[in-house]
Amino acid sequence: MIILGIDPGFGRVGWGVVEKINGNWTHVAHGCIETFQDKTFLERLEQVSEQLRQVIEKYKPDHSAVEELFFSKNAKTVIDVAQARGVIMLTINQQGIPIMELTPLQVKQAIVGYGRAEKTQVQKMLKILLQLEKIPKQDDAADALAVAMACASQINFQKKVNG
Amino acid sequence: MIILGIDPGFGRVGWGVVEKINGNWTHVAHGCIETFQDKTFLERLEQVSEQLRQVIEKYKPDHSAVEELFFSKNAKTVIDVAQARGVIMLTINQQGIPIMELTPLQVKQAIVGYGRAEKTQVQKMLKILLQLEKIPKQDDAADALAVAMACASQINFQKKVNG
Repeated sequence: MIILGIDPGFGRVGWGVVEKINGNWTHVAHGCIETFQDKTFLERLEQVSEQLRQVIEKYKPDHSAVEELFFSKNAKTVIDVAQARGVIMLTINQQGIPIMELTPLQVKQAIVGYGRAEKTQVQKMLKILLQLEKIPKQDDAADALAVAMACASQINFQKKVNG
Repeated sequence: MIILGIDPGFGRVGWGVVEKINGNWTHVAHGCIETFQDKTFLERLEQVSEQLRQVIEKYKPDHSAVEELFFSKNAKTVIDVAQARGVIMLTINQQGIPIMELTPLQVKQAIVGYGRAEKTQVQKMLKILLQLEKIPKQDDAADALAVAMACASQINFQKKVNG
């Protein structure tokens, strides 16, 4: 089982891939899709879709999880990020991969066991869980790995419940 | 020249098609894509994309225009509408159709000549411009026709400027 986690964004989309090997969830890869202001809004949306498709083709995830958005003070930012998230959802769906939607609270709860945990606590737990040598430099990529692991945890749980 | 105008939404996406015939912009068709709460969020995004693709295949527009979003008081709504707008932009782009982005102010300016015009003024002008027997029942479809006509007006203007 391979899971792709996504931390949605417009200027920067974090992604992380984990795989269950011999019963353990293992780090496969992580990164960021970055779009820059020298492109038009539409070109940037297109780039997010295209590069995400490349990630999917390379790692062939069986499942995915995309973090939900919450209202921020910067309304312009949230509108752009939300439009990018729509593009992300459609792109993954067009590749036929199931999508789980998780709130930031659900992600923290799954990784640290506490929904209001600090970002650094999440990253430390992630380092232990995935036996990483170091925490990913980019926060968005680390967040995406956390989303992937929270999805893994949900799937584990559902399997237990359903026998 | 055939233009598709879009009033983006999540529960309801307005669309309108106009065509230049013998030098006059003429009404071709209009309607709404409606999505309902008995579907999941992803299914609703997918439905917007699929039905929009059907409209594009049927009317084969040469150009399109999608209204921009503004911040509203209801943050949850704006996030959902913005995600749908991202899906709309990607879907039109995947069909290879150029997209113009217009603010509500630009649309009103183009139709009524006044950016702060009331919705009813816009609809009355639209009825005259497109020689409609009556104003479309659904506001979103009427808005979409206004977006299409504002795009037509921009294209006319650009042609004049560029000779």
